[in-house]
Amino acid sequence: VYSARPVIARLELAWDGTRYAGWQRQLDAVTIQQTLEEALARLTGEAVAVIGAGRTDAGVHAHGQVVSFRLGRDFQLSGLIHGANHHLPADLRVLAAAAAPEDFHARRSAIAKEYRYRLWRGRTPPPERAPFVVPTEADPAVDTLAAAARLLVGEHDFAPFSVTGGAPGPTVRRIFSAAWESNGHELIFRVTGEGFLRGMVRRLVGTQLELARGRRTLDSLADLLADPGAGEAGPSAPARGLALERVDYADGPGAGPGSLRAVG
Amino acid sequence: VYSARPVIARLELAWDGTRYAGWQRQLDAVTIQQTLEEALARLTGEAVAVIGAGRTDAGVHAHGQVVSFRLGRDFQLSGLIHGANHHLPADLRVLAAAAAPEDFHARRSAIAKEYRYRLWRGRTPPPERAPFVVPTEADPAVDTLAAAARLLVGEHDFAPFSVTGGAPGPTVRRIFSAAWESNGHELIFRVTGEGFLRGMVRRLVGTQLELARGRRTLDSLADLLADPGAGEAGPSAPARGLALERVDYADGPGAGPGSLRAVG
Repeated sequence: VYSARPVIARLELAWDGTRYAGWQRQLDAVTIQQTLEEALARLTGEAVAVIGAGRTDAGVHAHGQVVSFRLGRDFQLSGLIHGANHHLPADLRVLAAAAAPEDFHARRSAIAKEYRYRLWRGRTPPPERAPFVVPTEADPAVDTLAAAARLLVGEHDFAPFSVTGGAPGPTVRRIFSAAWESNGHELIFRVTGEGFLRGMVRRLVGTQLELARGRRTLDSLADLLADPGAGEAGPSAPARGLALERVDYADGPGAGPGSLRAVG
Repeated sequence: VYSARPVIARLELAWDGTRYAGWQRQLDAVTIQQTLEEALARLTGEAVAVIGAGRTDAGVHAHGQVVSFRLGRDFQLSGLIHGANHHLPADLRVLAAAAAPEDFHARRSAIAKEYRYRLWRGRTPPPERAPFVVPTEADPAVDTLAAAARLLVGEHDFAPFSVTGGAPGPTVRRIFSAAWESNGHELIFRVTGEGFLRGMVRRLVGTQLELARGRRTLDSLADLLADPGAGEAGPSAPARGLALERVDYADGPGAGPGSLRAVG
């Protein structure tokens, strides 16, 4: 059914971030936002401004970014998915699409996000996994990582874990869950929270790795979470290990109710 | 133990072929052979000429290419693996290494090779799989593919399946096994044989896909295998679906007995 009234589209995206300068439009670099907006403009003939739930940094991947945008007229879900993918490069895909309520806003409506950070146990990830994992030459102490992750859960001032250049404003965030899990050679940090400061997940990983290597104690992490002035966080872990995995909304994750999926 | 006598090295390699112009050295393009020889020269200080078991085309991947080369002095397996990987880009990895007998020759000593060709059932492979699979919009008839694969087994003149520009010479090859298998969204053609003509696996796939789509009959394939003058083979399937999976020798696959593996 087509109509002349404007409608809100809600898409779920995945990308290999290797060659992108992150989500947000920049004047002199190729970003996900720009690539998507250009593909949607070619498809619809409209100038499209997309809102992304997460503003990921250069080199970070996504398996479930959610975006919203307004179109001047109704659209078919299948045509939107496959038409956009036709105009997009193969390293950026629309996985699912839905029509959303007028007040849906991919960033402001989000209630939780999940990120995953993937380490490779060993020095030699195979070429197919190398863009998505970070090798750890010394096998990290898994018990210590698990204990560190448990400390992160809850509401804390994460200012020490933000990067310079992050937006000013409140630095308290609530983490719902944080854990490490093994999957073959991969050692994966899964963290969900209502929101994250810029660079926060990568510094959480870098700090936990210092801990697992004995360069920092669990107590010093607990102190830092209780008092942002208590010390310094660890370094940022490399971007390529990080992926935005899922975005949750009150009505469900990803493209939400009534969505059509591309794969299958 | 180091010695001044020359020794033969035997390596097992994997690569993502996306940005390479194939295995064999070329004057004006980046190839796997050249990239490997340059890394080994930097590591050893010797000019190294490597022999590859399979001479894969541009865009074809490998999970188990085997190469051999002569070094002027003995070497440590661990130093060879990690030293070479240090000098190689992340999309080309040494997976395992061994010292080989003086008469070992990666191509001439090979007794069998396995290739796999990966289709994606659906229009939208996720970005991480997109470089390694070829989408099939219409789901191919799996029973027909299975019957076609069975026809390929045995000794046939595969001249119709070679590409122009292939080396002159005998075109009879023995195929040991050929089958299609499913793995999630992937539909995989596995074929092992004592050797393959240039472009042969991709045209075997293209021909079977014509068959599965009803554009060709099983009888016409049987006729073509019995008499190379009976007709034309199908088109080449795209390079990115193909990978050299394993090379077998009398003493075992890959880097062989006494080899050290990089991963783990």
